[in-house]
Amino acid sequence: MVRSRFPLKLLFVGFGNVGRELARILTRKADYPGLTDLDVSVVGITTKSRGALARETGVDLARALMDLDEGGRFSPQNPDYSELASLEAASLLDYDVLVEMSPLSIENRGQPAISHAETALRRGRHVITCNKGPLAFAYKELRKLADENNAAFLHETTVMDGAPVFDLARCCMKGNTIRRIDGILNSTSNYVLCAMEKGLTFEEGVRGAQAEQIAEADPSNDLDGWDASVKIVALANVLMGADLRPEDVDRESISSITPERIREVKERKRRIKMVCSAWREGSSFKAAVKAEEIPLEHPFALVDAAGSIVRFETDLLGRILVTEENPDITTTAYGVLADLYALHSGNR
Amino acid sequence: MVRSRFPLKLLFVGFGNVGRELARILTRKADYPGLTDLDVSVVGITTKSRGALARETGVDLARALMDLDEGGRFSPQNPDYSELASLEAASLLDYDVLVEMSPLSIENRGQPAISHAETALRRGRHVITCNKGPLAFAYKELRKLADENNAAFLHETTVMDGAPVFDLARCCMKGNTIRRIDGILNSTSNYVLCAMEKGLTFEEGVRGAQAEQIAEADPSNDLDGWDASVKIVALANVLMGADLRPEDVDRESISSITPERIREVKERKRRIKMVCSAWREGSSFKAAVKAEEIPLEHPFALVDAAGSIVRFETDLLGRILVTEENPDITTTAYGVLADLYALHSGNR
Repeated sequence: MVRSRFPLKLLFVGFGNVGRELARILTRKADYPGLTDLDVSVVGITTKSRGALARETGVDLARALMDLDEGGRFSPQNPDYSELASLEAASLLDYDVLVEMSPLSIENRGQPAISHAETALRRGRHVITCNKGPLAFAYKELRKLADENNAAFLHETTVMDGAPVFDLARCCMKGNTIRRIDGILNSTSNYVLCAMEKGLTFEEGVRGAQAEQIAEADPSNDLDGWDASVKIVALANVLMGADLRPEDVDRESISSITPERIREVKERKRRIKMVCSAWREGSSFKAAVKAEEIPLEHPFALVDAAGSIVRFETDLLGRILVTEENPDITTTAYGVLADLYALHSGNR
Repeated sequence: MVRSRFPLKLLFVGFGNVGRELARILTRKADYPGLTDLDVSVVGITTKSRGALARETGVDLARALMDLDEGGRFSPQNPDYSELASLEAASLLDYDVLVEMSPLSIENRGQPAISHAETALRRGRHVITCNKGPLAFAYKELRKLADENNAAFLHETTVMDGAPVFDLARCCMKGNTIRRIDGILNSTSNYVLCAMEKGLTFEEGVRGAQAEQIAEADPSNDLDGWDASVKIVALANVLMGADLRPEDVDRESISSITPERIREVKERKRRIKMVCSAWREGSSFKAAVKAEEIPLEHPFALVDAAGSIVRFETDLLGRILVTEENPDITTTAYGVLADLYALHSGNR
């Protein structure tokens, strides 16, 4: 229940879509209604291949955004320009919160994000991660490190964008034991399945998701269930006390699902959805990501396009479902603000 | 962020279903998993017509439950027996939290629950109300009183039983402005409408709801939309800053809905639901409770029997829905525990 120092000085590791949206929000602070209670500055931004910025009194975010728009990277002419690599910045800069926004690497088992988080936590600095890797590959160790160093380790954005999932369980379901978690948590696969129901081919569905910036250039992690596996493992590790890894998940790809099968299932008043699940089995935990046939009267059948849903089965509170409709980059960025609010109110 | 004194001494005002379930939970504390972090005792129980109990070191809850089971009221032979009326107990006893569980009276505009809450708050004691009256008829005044006296005023149970609604908005949506709230919040009316879809008459539906202890002996407040009006007003007053009263709600009864209409709507792939709504209109607020035709692919169409749902439309986080499936008296009692946890963690 330690109140954080204010104003909060942030170090951004990574400056992709979420980082830039956050920067936009912070530069137009006056007309973004959610920020009145927060006083934050960004003292460093590091990237893998776009250079870095650092300034103790706060980097010029408008200039940072302009640099990227104009040259695709930070300009050496930018007065805040720096040669710092992310890990160096995590070790050396004076910040309160490291905001980890580098892309997830499943091949590298969550690295280098895990090292960034470790470095910050060892220094007693808070970590907000938007990268799911640290939760899926090193949650127990990082949680222990955070507790030992009286630092917060927050991650609301990692599952269902800014919608309250971890905060909900942490703040609103105290005393409950979560027995089971089910959800639809991957937008790209859901978008493609919905597109096929409308008569498009698998490939047309993928291209549509890319055109709407839901899917990445290489969507295989989404379609093969890896992204969903990482998310259900993150939920199970954080909320159920599991110690699973993505490779432990009984995982099914949707890439073999044909338009014929979709049509046949639809005729039987069902929809195919990529459903993630985690549950207890005796003293151990299991997780699965499966293309399941969902009857139309089931809440999961209503999740369209980029929407998502999670259902918690608890001992005291029964079944609680949270649905997010039509998320966008602003709602994702809000997840980081939610974590900053948690720091601000000492509710972490 | 003031941590409360521990252990927490509670005064129960009212001892109906929720109070008795709480007493059962507190007496079998060892095998109720949610209580490990809470240390509470009940120093008084007052009722309107069943007598009262009081003991500074904690009344004997097992004996209290036995009294009710055996004689329908507290026995004068009970060593904790007391003649205290509720308002006297609120003024005189030494407690930390007044738990208001008396029945809602719309005719008396939330009284006497409002006076109980006022009395406790003026003494700087926390109030947890399960009675919606104080929120629907006197929220602004009580909130002000609570703030002036550095006391908490909590009420998670009042809408959707123990499911997180107020806590969700308070803890997980900080910085957001809620623009609109819609929900299905009355179990009895929903149960009756579902029963009519299955071919039963209105009266058979009501008797079914009574048999399952969803509806009270006189279900008119539920069927005429008064209970739903009180709930939507509570949500609007607490979460949107409105200052509405139940009589301001544009309210429709479901009692004139015929099985024929239900059938005809069903044929058009729709369901009739009692939908509560609150929204901003310029600088003022409006609320309605209406029997609406909901298309089957809308999330509200999936709410069956005693389930409930609420949808928040926010500026930063988009649309967030929370669904509660199959609540029972234990989940309702959990709402009080959730408020006790909020006091315990200083998160109020």
